[in-house]
Amino acid sequence: MISVGQYLCNRLQELGLNHIFGVPGDYVLSLMDVFVESPIDLICTCNELNAGYAADAYARIKGLGAVCITYGVGGFSLVNAVVGAYAERVPLVVISGGPNNAVRGNHLLLHHTTGDYNLQFSIMEKATVAAVIITEPGQAAKQIDQVLAACLHYKRPVYIEIPSDLVNQPCPPSVDISLPIKELTDINALNEAVEEAVTLLEKAKKPVILSGVEIHRFQMQSKLIKLLDKTGYPIATTLLGKSCIPELHPQFIGNYVGALSRESIRQRIETSDCILCLGAIMSDMNLGIYTAQLDAQKLINANSEKVKIKNHFYQPIYLGDFIDGLMNNLTSRNYESLDIKPASYLLTKNFEVKPDKKIISQKFYERINHFLDDDFIVISDTGDAIIATIDLLMHKGAEFIGQAFYLSIGYSIPACLGAALASPKHRPIVFVGDGAFQMTAQELSTIIRHKLNPIIFLLNNDGYTIERLIHDGPYNDIQPWKYHELPHIFGESWSCEVSTEGELEEALIKAKSNTDCVSFIEIHLDRFDCSPGLIRLGKEVNKMEMNELEKK
Amino acid sequence: MISVGQYLCNRLQELGLNHIFGVPGDYVLSLMDVFVESPIDLICTCNELNAGYAADAYARIKGLGAVCITYGVGGFSLVNAVVGAYAERVPLVVISGGPNNAVRGNHLLLHHTTGDYNLQFSIMEKATVAAVIITEPGQAAKQIDQVLAACLHYKRPVYIEIPSDLVNQPCPPSVDISLPIKELTDINALNEAVEEAVTLLEKAKKPVILSGVEIHRFQMQSKLIKLLDKTGYPIATTLLGKSCIPELHPQFIGNYVGALSRESIRQRIETSDCILCLGAIMSDMNLGIYTAQLDAQKLINANSEKVKIKNHFYQPIYLGDFIDGLMNNLTSRNYESLDIKPASYLLTKNFEVKPDKKIISQKFYERINHFLDDDFIVISDTGDAIIATIDLLMHKGAEFIGQAFYLSIGYSIPACLGAALASPKHRPIVFVGDGAFQMTAQELSTIIRHKLNPIIFLLNNDGYTIERLIHDGPYNDIQPWKYHELPHIFGESWSCEVSTEGELEEALIKAKSNTDCVSFIEIHLDRFDCSPGLIRLGKEVNKMEMNELEKK
Repeated sequence: MISVGQYLCNRLQELGLNHIFGVPGDYVLSLMDVFVESPIDLICTCNELNAGYAADAYARIKGLGAVCITYGVGGFSLVNAVVGAYAERVPLVVISGGPNNAVRGNHLLLHHTTGDYNLQFSIMEKATVAAVIITEPGQAAKQIDQVLAACLHYKRPVYIEIPSDLVNQPCPPSVDISLPIKELTDINALNEAVEEAVTLLEKAKKPVILSGVEIHRFQMQSKLIKLLDKTGYPIATTLLGKSCIPELHPQFIGNYVGALSRESIRQRIETSDCILCLGAIMSDMNLGIYTAQLDAQKLINANSEKVKIKNHFYQPIYLGDFIDGLMNNLTSRNYESLDIKPASYLLTKNFEVKPDKKIISQKFYERINHFLDDDFIVISDTGDAIIATIDLLMHKGAEFIGQAFYLSIGYSIPACLGAALASPKHRPIVFVGDGAFQMTAQELSTIIRHKLNPIIFLLNNDGYTIERLIHDGPYNDIQPWKYHELPHIFGESWSCEVSTEGELEEALIKAKSNTDCVSFIEIHLDRFDCSPGLIRLGKEVNKMEMNELEKK
Repeated sequence: MISVGQYLCNRLQELGLNHIFGVPGDYVLSLMDVFVESPIDLICTCNELNAGYAADAYARIKGLGAVCITYGVGGFSLVNAVVGAYAERVPLVVISGGPNNAVRGNHLLLHHTTGDYNLQFSIMEKATVAAVIITEPGQAAKQIDQVLAACLHYKRPVYIEIPSDLVNQPCPPSVDISLPIKELTDINALNEAVEEAVTLLEKAKKPVILSGVEIHRFQMQSKLIKLLDKTGYPIATTLLGKSCIPELHPQFIGNYVGALSRESIRQRIETSDCILCLGAIMSDMNLGIYTAQLDAQKLINANSEKVKIKNHFYQPIYLGDFIDGLMNNLTSRNYESLDIKPASYLLTKNFEVKPDKKIISQKFYERINHFLDDDFIVISDTGDAIIATIDLLMHKGAEFIGQAFYLSIGYSIPACLGAALASPKHRPIVFVGDGAFQMTAQELSTIIRHKLNPIIFLLNNDGYTIERLIHDGPYNDIQPWKYHELPHIFGESWSCEVSTEGELEEALIKAKSNTDCVSFIEIHLDRFDCSPGLIRLGKEVNKMEMNELEKK
């Protein structure tokens, strides 16, 4: 009979996992031995938070990710990664070793604990959709299956704690629990919702689709493309939902992020007489810090489990069933109805290099748009990097990864590790500011260790530029590092620094051909040089703060 | 009238705080402005976990420390520092910005949240002794005082969340709450406990004191010295309690850590017919992973709030009152009764440098013992570094800082930042392994930024040596860095690498005289070269694992 640890490992393998991220520690070493002996590669990171971010990015690409850490010092160090995954609907399995089951209830003051062996569970329970401490090997298979099923069903993190003395205990097989749990749709609610939505859409003169991250998480990209083909509607995506359809698609008009969007997109969305929202999370950032002006009377808002039209709800309705219902009942429209340029026009704009000219942020991203192709995964860190991403076009098969709702600074470098391993065919291209980079810089060493070959753009604008624009103070200054020299401390790598447009051209050529190791390019920008989107954000937030001050 | 933010800031200042650690983020910027304008220095770190560790070390020296972070991404990133402070009785004030009070209950999906604005509070509540979200400015002063009083009373972390729109609201003064809460002692229980303890101690032939960390946290060092002067008893301390008395004191015999202790100390403690434990936390590490053999029948165990003799308890008894009671009732003994060499004899041993000989761990620490003086604070990271510390002697006024119970790896570099600022008269000397260093390496940049001058010994033994000895596997390997070149990436610094005894001598001379910036010394050790204590630990834990396997 297989052991508890082997059962978990086999299940993860069946679900498509090739890698698991973690940091060793004595409560988890026997479990790590199980992974070491399995076909799943154990990727050890420098610290646990970074392991969590790496597994999160891995899950965004593979549909499941896992992290394996020791009790206490390990588990409590990755709470932020877990909460981020919860917010952004990332199916992340957190696996922790635990104090021996045999000593539970003894109240011994074991290292890495406060003496309360339920503390980690009770905290993780709040940040996950399902959590369990395995205490009886006979129940382990069933409990593991239930927790994994919840992870896949809700696309949110779950927690499994295995006391170290139970890892190698025999594990009787589970009773039949199919993974994932089948989605349930109330067929009457579905029919009525589809009928109402179709009526509104058919009547509309300027319908538009706004799609979001759940399309990606629940793997409905091809359903959505079919709906586009049939209806001819223009489509925008939220920032968190970016790349849920290929952005060179002729009906794709851009990312809609309230006042942060390009003006033409904002106009097209906000003047639409019927907006079909599919799988979008209506977060402040996705709505351009609530600068979005979406009239509820014109909204059909379908999320993973329910449909809201105007001010009433239909539930439970599985998002896929609702899209199918629309497919089967909407009539086709002429493509001419798009009445706005597709986003791909950005690539037709002339781009001229002035070799000696100092590089500025706007020019840099324009250039990158011509550099991107199907081979890249784009990873943007929180700050100007993620806002600038609004105007980058994601090609077919390319993925965009960024915490566009929860916005952890420092996410991108560990995420790059996870993404590179999840999709060896693609090459990650990372945009990270200097402040964000300092948070998790050491994980570059793990990228180098595994001979991965991402291209990392370190945008050095000497501090937290995004905060300078919102609310400045001395706390927005950071210590200047010699960033481009750092990769060599960690191992074999190629790096350079860029100050002019000509240097950028040279760096791009070199990076494209350097497929053997990491390419690390430090871009020197002025302190307040940032993307047009960020300038708009700063103004909007300032305006909101002023309004508040005036109220006082 | 002062504002809520100013009230908190003033209170912290009154309690002796000169620095607060943190990372900016928009929910906390208005609160940070209050600190920026106050005499308290805001020290921004590279990430939040590091801010937590820095504030923890600061608190160990100053009796109070504080960290100030943004909501969500900030608070959830430092949970491990909070739990560590809880375990080791560190008075740490966690201050978080929060979503605007005006939007509470609206369920808006704000960035850095999951939409549940109580999540951070509900998690922090579990890891602290008191937690509050300020929701009414009129109650703020009272609530802040209550939480701070709990921090000082229990010497454990507390949590204060201030929604960003309340920071600048007027704050009516508090009703009278004295800080800290007066300790309560049941006088009858005290008298009976003292009488029983005195009877046992007077009757004993070989009494001994084992003192622990609470002596330090509750500032009872001078009471303890007086008790030693009067009784003439020999004294050992736990590892977590290290430096609660100066270790050159003639009655100090060493650190007692079960089988990890030097044999003579173990013998003296375990053959004692009456052990007076004062303020010791009986954790697995403090007890040498439960290799300590302490007979409950011979134990008088006084902690901060209660006294246990044999198998019965007296409570509530404030530790200070119990020590006073013993002082007043015990008779003096002759110093001759020590019957074991004081620990200071280690310094009388001959030390000979063989310049061309490869440096080994044991010789390194022997040399360090002759290097230490009153001017240093010793900070040891988790791993062999903290175990090796058992045989280092802490001089008068010198402090030892290390997570000897909770054992977070990576604690030392941020802790060095906190310690250096807390005690400008002392120079931190850090012992950190390569694995631990990789966890939090970026905080070296903040040490350099503030022109602090610690001496950092990076003990490079190519991986997690401590785990190699307990349970080896490929996960104990790490990426080799060019450690001694790293400080120059961060700024002005002096560094070198050492492979021989002669090179160590040169490095020590240079480091001692280099008081202008950090001295970073990479010591190259063999993979399995470690302190004698660690070898004993490995054997003990292996033996315990074997016993478990045999049981199966």
